[in-house]
Amino acid sequence: MRTVCRVDVSKPAKEQPTPVHNRWHPDVPSVAAVEPGEVFKVECLDWTGGQIKNDDCADDIKNVDLSQVHYLSGPIDVNGAKPGDLLVVEICDIQPLPGQDWGFTGVFAKENGGGFLDEYYPDACKAIWDFEGIYATSRHIPGVRFAGLIHPGLMGCAPDKALLDKWNKREGARTVPPREHGGNCDIKNLSRGSKIYFPVYVEGAKFSIGDIHFSQGDGEISFCGAIEMSGVVTLKMSIIPNGIELYGVSNPLYMPGPVEPRYNRQITFQGISVDANGKQLFLDATAAYRMACLNAIEHLKKHGYTGEQAYLLLSASPCDGKLAGMVDVPNACATIGIPIDMFEFDITPSVDGPVRQRNLGQCAVTSDKK
Amino acid sequence: MRTVCRVDVSKPAKEQPTPVHNRWHPDVPSVAAVEPGEVFKVECLDWTGGQIKNDDCADDIKNVDLSQVHYLSGPIDVNGAKPGDLLVVEICDIQPLPGQDWGFTGVFAKENGGGFLDEYYPDACKAIWDFEGIYATSRHIPGVRFAGLIHPGLMGCAPDKALLDKWNKREGARTVPPREHGGNCDIKNLSRGSKIYFPVYVEGAKFSIGDIHFSQGDGEISFCGAIEMSGVVTLKMSIIPNGIELYGVSNPLYMPGPVEPRYNRQITFQGISVDANGKQLFLDATAAYRMACLNAIEHLKKHGYTGEQAYLLLSASPCDGKLAGMVDVPNACATIGIPIDMFEFDITPSVDGPVRQRNLGQCAVTSDKK
Amino acid sequence: MRTVCRVDVSKPAKEQPTPVHNRWHPDVPSVAAVEPGEVFKVECLDWTGGQIKNDDCADDIKNVDLSQVHYLSGPIDVNGAKPGDLLVVEICDIQPLPGQDWGFTGVFAKENGGGFLDEYYPDACKAIWDFEGIYATSRHIPGVRFAGLIHPGLMGCAPDKALLDKWNKREGARTVPPREHGGNCDIKNLSRGSKIYFPVYVEGAKFSIGDIHFSQGDGEISFCGAIEMSGVVTLKMSIIPNGIELYGVSNPLYMPGPVEPRYNRQITFQGISVDANGKQLFLDATAAYRMACLNAIEHLKKHGYTGEQAYLLLSASPCDGKLAGMVDVPNACATIGIPIDMFEFDITPSVDGPVRQRNLGQCAVTSDKK
Amino acid sequence: MRTVCRVDVSKPAKEQPTPVHNRWHPDVPSVAAVEPGEVFKVECLDWTGGQIKNDDCADDIKNVDLSQVHYLSGPIDVNGAKPGDLLVVEICDIQPLPGQDWGFTGVFAKENGGGFLDEYYPDACKAIWDFEGIYATSRHIPGVRFAGLIHPGLMGCAPDKALLDKWNKREGARTVPPREHGGNCDIKNLSRGSKIYFPVYVEGAKFSIGDIHFSQGDGEISFCGAIEMSGVVTLKMSIIPNGIELYGVSNPLYMPGPVEPRYNRQITFQGISVDANGKQLFLDATAAYRMACLNAIEHLKKHGYTGEQAYLLLSASPCDGKLAGMVDVPNACATIGIPIDMFEFDITPSVDGPVRQRNLGQCAVTSDKK
Repeated sequence: MRTVCRVDVSKPAKEQPTPVHNRWHPDVPSVAAVEPGEVFKVECLDWTGGQIKNDDCADDIKNVDLSQVHYLSGPIDVNGAKPGDLLVVEICDIQPLPGQDWGFTGVFAKENGGGFLDEYYPDACKAIWDFEGIYATSRHIPGVRFAGLIHPGLMGCAPDKALLDKWNKREGARTVPPREHGGNCDIKNLSRGSKIYFPVYVEGAKFSIGDIHFSQGDGEISFCGAIEMSGVVTLKMSIIPNGIELYGVSNPLYMPGPVEPRYNRQITFQGISVDANGKQLFLDATAAYRMACLNAIEHLKKHGYTGEQAYLLLSASPCDGKLAGMVDVPNACATIGIPIDMFEFDITPSVDGPVRQRNLGQCAVTSDKK
Repeated sequence: MRTVCRVDVSKPAKEQPTPVHNRWHPDVPSVAAVEPGEVFKVECLDWTGGQIKNDDCADDIKNVDLSQVHYLSGPIDVNGAKPGDLLVVEICDIQPLPGQDWGFTGVFAKENGGGFLDEYYPDACKAIWDFEGIYATSRHIPGVRFAGLIHPGLMGCAPDKALLDKWNKREGARTVPPREHGGNCDIKNLSRGSKIYFPVYVEGAKFSIGDIHFSQGDGEISFCGAIEMSGVVTLKMSIIPNGIELYGVSNPLYMPGPVEPRYNRQITFQGISVDANGKQLFLDATAAYRMACLNAIEHLKKHGYTGEQAYLLLSASPCDGKLAGMVDVPNACATIGIPIDMFEFDITPSVDGPVRQRNLGQCAVTSDKK
Repeated sequence: MRTVCRVDVSKPAKEQPTPVHNRWHPDVPSVAAVEPGEVFKVECLDWTGGQIKNDDCADDIKNVDLSQVHYLSGPIDVNGAKPGDLLVVEICDIQPLPGQDWGFTGVFAKENGGGFLDEYYPDACKAIWDFEGIYATSRHIPGVRFAGLIHPGLMGCAPDKALLDKWNKREGARTVPPREHGGNCDIKNLSRGSKIYFPVYVEGAKFSIGDIHFSQGDGEISFCGAIEMSGVVTLKMSIIPNGIELYGVSNPLYMPGPVEPRYNRQITFQGISVDANGKQLFLDATAAYRMACLNAIEHLKKHGYTGEQAYLLLSASPCDGKLAGMVDVPNACATIGIPIDMFEFDITPSVDGPVRQRNLGQCAVTSDKK
Repeated sequence: MRTVCRVDVSKPAKEQPTPVHNRWHPDVPSVAAVEPGEVFKVECLDWTGGQIKNDDCADDIKNVDLSQVHYLSGPIDVNGAKPGDLLVVEICDIQPLPGQDWGFTGVFAKENGGGFLDEYYPDACKAIWDFEGIYATSRHIPGVRFAGLIHPGLMGCAPDKALLDKWNKREGARTVPPREHGGNCDIKNLSRGSKIYFPVYVEGAKFSIGDIHFSQGDGEISFCGAIEMSGVVTLKMSIIPNGIELYGVSNPLYMPGPVEPRYNRQITFQGISVDANGKQLFLDATAAYRMACLNAIEHLKKHGYTGEQAYLLLSASPCDGKLAGMVDVPNACATIGIPIDMFEFDITPSVDGPVRQRNLGQCAVTSDKK
């Protein structure tokens, strides 16, 4: 099995064995070509290109250079792919790189990146996760252990000139936002065994991939919010000629894989689109989900976690963010479901009240907070 | 087992055996009292109180009197419940009423109620569903059959005076919106076997329930969007004294039940917060979910459904509405996942293109459209 | 929706509104005829025809009259079904009869019926179960509560003369054994939403059904081993003409339904085909499963259950009986998996050892044992 | 992370970097020692030690030297483990060895090893499987693709002298049978994330492991019946002191992991304990399962597979072998459930009859059969 893109995590992003890139453009030169039906591997840097370290200080998160991100592997040409086709990408496997059995989750400082709850948690902090095979644990967030729903946060085919122009007019062509071609969708269910249908805009498709996540909660709420890592993806591709027209496709679609961790037992928190100051936001699902997350954090704090730990945990563990009522004017309702079985203690409500856990410590903070 | 609230679907809402109500107020008189631990039944009207008929014309949807809704059963006193407690409500079962083996889904007209996609589908239409045990089929949307994720759209304890004042100031005390106490959350996973923790505001809790859904997709997007029906709920309650304070509760939380239909094979459509006119809406999950729904509808149309049929189907079948990236500025990403196995034909993309189904007919329209 | 067979649990088996039968024979007169595609209901007595009572004494189990069993509803003619066809039976729903919210599980005395472990547990005993919607609990086996995997233990089409002759030569035509036509298979997964393909031997198929179980563990090990009850089944049938030949069918086949309770968290006990006396039985899966069951019982006894309670629990709750190695000479290996989440306390092993539960009481015994 | 046992698949079993062994004995010298809580890796040869090749001829299967098997890695000492303890083994991950992306399944010849159906399929044959990440496909069994339920077939702690004597008296101390200590149980669900509790008989536990399977059906019916391969296991261990006594343990028990492939849609075949000649075998689950397997094979043959292909497929793919009625004298009932979604065509019965697939080829046979 070929490895068509190689990385070396001991080297800076600019000195990689296979060049990486961090902008969307049809003229980024392809680094490899594959055949439809071929099974091949692609290695990827973590999205920051190695800026974050396995230590107990969050200064690297605070001072992260966001002008570099995201480092992507590719573009990869798929022989025969033409504009108008659908590129069918099957994620046959994803693994950490050999010997790289750790990842990180960070809350960006409000003044450098920020996140979903930066009004409440404005300071940089981080958690380091250790991988025990399929499981992750963190010395910064004790009391939990879960199987990762490993996936790439970012995938897509290169835009053509027209699409690029549209993006540049609208928001620039950085890699941060999700877009018509997919991009940084941060869909946690694009895991092992999933199959994604991407619109093709240029000859050869020019597919890129990166931002590997060992695990992530829906929303990736703390922004650097998954368990971020380098990794190696096993891929297989095929082509549906003229698929965009045949299926009326505007954005990618996908089918999830058969080996997602089974965490059916969840404790689920509701939120409505009335913010913490009592202000109503008309059918605003974003606001409703924010409130659901804040409600979940309050619950976890009662068990002994700090707010920052709870925020990082919702962001990094396989939590389900769902839309409930979207039409019941004037309030939207959204929910976040947390796997009960990832906790070493019981987090469900009972007449005894929460047994406050001791020794839950705290996440890594910046040096000026210590 | 006691049935503490009874309804008679042959009679108007005002002539029910047990009085029903349609506003939230602490002074609505309780119709029954139950003991913690008691298992009991509550019968409910459909949310419109019988306005919609099992026929092939959507005039009743077009002309629905929304000033009446929602008709709720209760309030029910739970002996011993006190303000500040959590009321633990277990939904032991939900069934259609004997002999009432049908339900309806409607798209409200834009000028009378509207819905999530009323800019695209402004006219009233409806689909009637027939129940075959756990399954639903519709003569108005052929080609699908699915197991219902049966649930009440609306539950909660009565507000106290202070909460009621807050609501009246904010939005009135109609039953439509979801709120701090729960209310019309339209969470499809509050199904058989689920357990919900509700804040208690008044002595006895004064719990009400209604708006029974045989099935619903996340968002309940067409507004009258579930498979709406009358039904009977089997409940069991307990109390966590002082639970609001103990667990830091602002909104209800819940644990799903163990018998949700297993529809793991899904085809999932993505949407981003750029609307159909190319306008970007900053991290707007509502807009992103709307685009995901429109993308799904385009796909279903390629297989032969009308847009209205597809809209009703997304609204009524057990589709999953999920939040993906919520921090990847400036675009939010949301998804809608459709159960593959509910279709009698293959809706997944292939090189052969969609085989356009014949004889899919159309949904029920208003008499002026026929 | 028609109810084509009615029962009255207040009356003896011989005085039922629709006649019941308890032997397989092509000449048992049909009691109803249905059309392919029709959805209809069939009511059933419990398998003993009401011999077992909702009380705390096992004398009725000890003295059960097994010459009567099993009482079946039917035969039902399916219009158009012919010998050689496959009858496709969809179990659209199963429910207890209205007002009959209880069931029983018994260990038959070794001298009257016996069971899988009668060498170890020779005495009659029983447990009564109360239904709380989808859940069952028992005053005779405290500490557990589970969602039932409701199903009929016994279904099949009438044999023709040739098949009947074969049975009579081989074992008689009582209803007890599973056979070529299906019969008393006691497959717990033939639950709501399942679809079974039965060979047809006579004109009209003459389908019979009975022995309704609210729940059962694989093996139904205590013989009267499910949660036995009366009930009502919603059915829908279709025909595959000449299906026996087309698909090479000797015994029924089936597809499980989509709403089986999700009890993925299991504690699973292994057994090998060496009996409790150290005697080896060559690749004997029956012996291996017996040892797995005995191992599970020992575990449950450490938590405070009596052996009889544990035996009844394995028999009645949704335990999975699986075959592991069947070729590793000379020992077969089989397992029984017990749902962890049905217990109110933790039954998984830990360094603290089992916390022996108090107040687990005992099951109902015979009057001479009290 | 340490790798405590290393193998080199290019070398014979006797020249491995870490010695391997193939008999159970307390005096086999330990090759490594680990601490409780340590996460470490163990590499394993395939069970035959490399006798079977990735080619299209089954002569190697026919002539396999069974006196060598099974090659095990270990024994591994766990510091602090004492006789009477339970050794808790968590399978954190299992992977093929790097670059070894294939495995094999064989039917042993009746005169050299045989298998579950050797009366019907007496000749040696084999299938080679290629791994595409989590998926397996075979050029010898086209039309199927499935996610592997990867697991070790064989694990356990070394026996003490007394247990060894018992085995030697009973059946010898070869590695083939499952036994009190676990051993060759071939339980497919001991996959990623599972946790197994093993009795400890000697100081340090002396744990051995081997016989890695990429996938297997329950029963591993063709004997060389899993997708056999070399591999690397990530393990973590802990000790429950005096656990044998505390929990009344005779055989290992386990809890399955959270990432088993979800193949809920199954077509399930029944068998009863009446053999193909009409001979009844009293409550014989082994006979019933054999008949269920034969029934499944007949079905698959109707779709175009040869009997040998179907036999290999049931043996190697994640089929569920379950016990149904075990008390319904005189016939036992057992079932085999086959994942519907692993087939590229529809294998469920319909009025159209099976569409016979062309180009399904055949499995690899011996050179004298070509």
